[in-house]
Amino acid sequence: MARGPLPIVDRNMGDHQIEFQPVGRRAPCPAGETLLDCARRLGVELVSICGGIGKCKGCKIRVMEGRFSEVTPAEQKAFTEEELESGWRLACQAYPQKDCRVNVPPESVGTQQRLQVEGWDVDVPLDSPIKSFACKLEPPSLTKPVADAENLLEKISALGPIHLDIRVLRDLSTRLREWNWSLTAHIQNRELVAVSPPGSHPLGLAVDLGSTKIAGYLIALDTGERLTSQAIMNPQISKGEDIITRINFAIRSSDGRTLMANMVREGLMELAGDLCAEVGAETGDILEAVIVGNTAMHHMMLGLPVRQLAISPFVLAVSGELNVRARDIGLDFAPGAQVYFPPNIAGFVGADHVAVLTATAEEWARENVIILDIGTNTEISLIAREKITSTSCASGPAFEGYQIRDGVRASPGAIEKVYLWGEDVGYKTIDDAEPIGICGSGILDAVSQLYLAGVLDKGGRMQEGSHSRVVKKNGRLEFILVPKEEDRRGPEISITQKDVREIQLGKAAIQAALEILVEQEGVSEKEIHKVIIAGAFGSYIDISNAIAIGMLPSFPLSRFHQVGNAAGIGAKLFLLSSAKRKAVWDLLSRVKYLELAGTPEFSEAFTRACLLEPYHLNLNAG
Amino acid sequence: MARGPLPIVDRNMGDHQIEFQPVGRRAPCPAGETLLDCARRLGVELVSICGGIGKCKGCKIRVMEGRFSEVTPAEQKAFTEEELESGWRLACQAYPQKDCRVNVPPESVGTQQRLQVEGWDVDVPLDSPIKSFACKLEPPSLTKPVADAENLLEKISALGPIHLDIRVLRDLSTRLREWNWSLTAHIQNRELVAVSPPGSHPLGLAVDLGSTKIAGYLIALDTGERLTSQAIMNPQISKGEDIITRINFAIRSSDGRTLMANMVREGLMELAGDLCAEVGAETGDILEAVIVGNTAMHHMMLGLPVRQLAISPFVLAVSGELNVRARDIGLDFAPGAQVYFPPNIAGFVGADHVAVLTATAEEWARENVIILDIGTNTEISLIAREKITSTSCASGPAFEGYQIRDGVRASPGAIEKVYLWGEDVGYKTIDDAEPIGICGSGILDAVSQLYLAGVLDKGGRMQEGSHSRVVKKNGRLEFILVPKEEDRRGPEISITQKDVREIQLGKAAIQAALEILVEQEGVSEKEIHKVIIAGAFGSYIDISNAIAIGMLPSFPLSRFHQVGNAAGIGAKLFLLSSAKRKAVWDLLSRVKYLELAGTPEFSEAFTRACLLEPYHLNLNAG
Repeated sequence: MARGPLPIVDRNMGDHQIEFQPVGRRAPCPAGETLLDCARRLGVELVSICGGIGKCKGCKIRVMEGRFSEVTPAEQKAFTEEELESGWRLACQAYPQKDCRVNVPPESVGTQQRLQVEGWDVDVPLDSPIKSFACKLEPPSLTKPVADAENLLEKISALGPIHLDIRVLRDLSTRLREWNWSLTAHIQNRELVAVSPPGSHPLGLAVDLGSTKIAGYLIALDTGERLTSQAIMNPQISKGEDIITRINFAIRSSDGRTLMANMVREGLMELAGDLCAEVGAETGDILEAVIVGNTAMHHMMLGLPVRQLAISPFVLAVSGELNVRARDIGLDFAPGAQVYFPPNIAGFVGADHVAVLTATAEEWARENVIILDIGTNTEISLIAREKITSTSCASGPAFEGYQIRDGVRASPGAIEKVYLWGEDVGYKTIDDAEPIGICGSGILDAVSQLYLAGVLDKGGRMQEGSHSRVVKKNGRLEFILVPKEEDRRGPEISITQKDVREIQLGKAAIQAALEILVEQEGVSEKEIHKVIIAGAFGSYIDISNAIAIGMLPSFPLSRFHQVGNAAGIGAKLFLLSSAKRKAVWDLLSRVKYLELAGTPEFSEAFTRACLLEPYHLNLNAG
Repeated sequence: MARGPLPIVDRNMGDHQIEFQPVGRRAPCPAGETLLDCARRLGVELVSICGGIGKCKGCKIRVMEGRFSEVTPAEQKAFTEEELESGWRLACQAYPQKDCRVNVPPESVGTQQRLQVEGWDVDVPLDSPIKSFACKLEPPSLTKPVADAENLLEKISALGPIHLDIRVLRDLSTRLREWNWSLTAHIQNRELVAVSPPGSHPLGLAVDLGSTKIAGYLIALDTGERLTSQAIMNPQISKGEDIITRINFAIRSSDGRTLMANMVREGLMELAGDLCAEVGAETGDILEAVIVGNTAMHHMMLGLPVRQLAISPFVLAVSGELNVRARDIGLDFAPGAQVYFPPNIAGFVGADHVAVLTATAEEWARENVIILDIGTNTEISLIAREKITSTSCASGPAFEGYQIRDGVRASPGAIEKVYLWGEDVGYKTIDDAEPIGICGSGILDAVSQLYLAGVLDKGGRMQEGSHSRVVKKNGRLEFILVPKEEDRRGPEISITQKDVREIQLGKAAIQAALEILVEQEGVSEKEIHKVIIAGAFGSYIDISNAIAIGMLPSFPLSRFHQVGNAAGIGAKLFLLSSAKRKAVWDLLSRVKYLELAGTPEFSEAFTRACLLEPYHLNLNAG
């Protein structure tokens, strides 16, 4: 529970009784302990993405009784005057001053985030670079005092010369005796990367390292089975929701690069630990990992410099594939375990998009397609006439539920669908739980439905008097999606004018990038057979709503294919198939990269695309 | 100056004036500071091999005036009653109690040890695995935004696919810009292991990692030139002078293995730092290192387990050659630098002997030879009739000046030669400095000369009344080699009965091993054309004296070749020549290992060989 230096706040030194409602936990809280620490001690798991520094708003609670330390600047920023007056606080900022009772809203309770990869998978012939061999050795004797390593090597001599990793060697002698000279040897590329007890299964880890989420898949390398999967928030989010902010953080402070690397490594190890624990294994059992991420996450994970990524001409430190020893990047897997990083394309089109292209290879093999991986950064590829052209745009974190006032992650209770029929307002939450906020697909739906209902005009301006749910608060209009009601303990949930603006900016970036890409390649709308939409957000959006506001082009609905977290699927394919790794070389030789950042064409198209209205891609090609 | 918990001694808390004689340094010593720490602060460099724990006797001083804390058990062990009464103390154990004046004998002053490799070297066609390429890159642009690593790889694409070490990658982008896109790329086995500014020379480090000494040679890889060389004491000596004691230390305590590894790594890094500093370089400039050592040192350096080494059937964790990333064994060289460890033979015949065999390959290519590498552990090879048979024996540290009462390292002032002509006693010191003690070759000479003069009988017993210099002290006989004189500030130097016993044990081990080896192989004395003597000690001994007491067999003097530190030369050859590394495979396939430890044959031969007398090797073959 030890934390950094405490903020300078007014607090006395006694113990206070704290009660958390509605969970009903109650215990004394020592002076000098924040409400967040107290909650943790009691097993009340509050959301804390930023690590308790008042940035993420995850741990908001409402004071029902008692007195706390003064409101901090972070809280002044997090809440409106009105909210503060009605008792809202951040648990990480508030030090109890006397016995207190607080209410924890459902959205502040840590819940398992929906991984959103269900229902889509790709099979591949098993061909992991890890080969496992069961061996029974003869114990050494005075007449044959063979060294332990050579004793093992002799058993697998049919494989040719095998390199011995030093970390594996350090354990080998002890293990051989412990296991009575029986073991399974795991070989990768003529190297002994681990030994395990006889009969154990080889494990691999596939990771989709996103700016916002890190998704992990634990895979049995010998059967290809996905044993379990999970996602966590990327801990770097406390240093900035978008990539550019994080790069600036990494550049500005002297140890920023190390700090950013450590944050994501620790998050990844935690995720790996949880996944392994679920199947009764340990992270030391992971024999190989594949990590795919955008170029910034790729560089930060590897501890590579990012300065040159953020300034023209936007150059990567390295673009080719890498096989890195896990321990060299701070990952504690099997002694000699390696991590495969597929190649990047260029600029901000990274290995995660290469993974998407690999996962969807069957889909675009014989057809012209557009592939969109929508996230905080959106990567787009146009595959037509045997050519692949890729680009990217910064679409912002609004689609992940960030920078939206009542936005939440896609977890139970998040509004994921919104319908408007005149005065009727309908919504659907994840797991049909009580609404706690609105997630990306819900916001998109809401903006689209509000536009179609005339609550928003083409410019995105909310129209006063256009609907009974449109109200003015502090001089600003907002649309009440879920009113505060007596019989519901959840909050009021609204769409604000600012929320609409965030969606407009995001969709404009995507639309502008698509328009320029298609125009430059001279492809007509008719030629594009399919639009593949990858990514967690993309798999849950309502395509018609996205078309209605011009986030997606006006294609027949049947041309759209939502394929879920294809980057994660691609990572799994790389983990299980050496052939897929080799195929990347051919794929890359066909990719042309289109840099949009900072070009006047993009700025112009972006400005036009801010309007909420459907659009066609064949503007010029007709 | 911070040290561990202080021993419980009687000390008060005031400051005292301390004066060191004859150097004439004087300053206050705060209470609670040992005399050793005080000396260090004043720049009086006392010998401290054990790190100030009262084990090595290196820091002995004599109190001339003043009062100190009580004599500790360590000091009671280090000195005789007589010596303690005359004021001898260990500086690391003594806390001043009032103003003091102490005398520092010359042997307690840290001096540069003689490396003893002068005058013998072997040339080899330059063929280092490190290949260096000067490159001038084109800066990336918006029209060609090539990644930094690929920019470099393109320049050296003629070499084929090159693996990029992650640590090199982490610096590359910054360096390229710093050096204005010009650099030298260093490639080893299709891998980029380092980049350096244009025009810099590639450096390599050859290391002979002995139980007692660590010798380092800094080599220019592009010219083969030995830029500088130096030796330090192996810091592990504080944990035991012989290998078995150290292995037991490594096994017994839970972190013993790590501790032993760290000691030798820190010593090696210090040595590397000194060597580099001498030529204006840094350890980060070392592109590759070769380390040769006996099997125990090899294992400890690599952090490998040693338990199975010490118990029958004396099995190595690994015997084959290893290429290990320097950072994986705690060595801070160039970012991707590797360390080559040549293969071991078996048991206690390690890579250092392989290096000796390699360095002397020309010598034994067409002749039958015996090769002896005399040290704390002595390795012996018999090369005859196209076969190589190797063995080893524990000859003890007496030949390095340890476990000899007045023994010192081979540094200036050490007696290295001794002559007796009746009553006349002559000696020669290293650098003709005033005598401070006696080193290995001097002790051997002394024992031999005493035996020849009838002061010692065949059994090694000192004969009372046999010489005017034989005196009885505390009931024990000793031979005064250098008497205490008025005009000389150095100590009295004697050969004690116990010293003679140490030499007898050492020589008996070597003789017994040689006898069994030759007998087993059925080789006659006549068939052996040459006896090659390697090792620092071996290059300075007087062969006739060694023959006289039966440490070496009675061969004509012309058959003996003293070749200096051949292990170090071998390490240098491996550093400079890939061909020499490959040749080891052939060499090893010809080596047969003979295990002597614990065999009844050895015990029997050893007992016989304790007698001081010349011997012939053709006992049976006649």
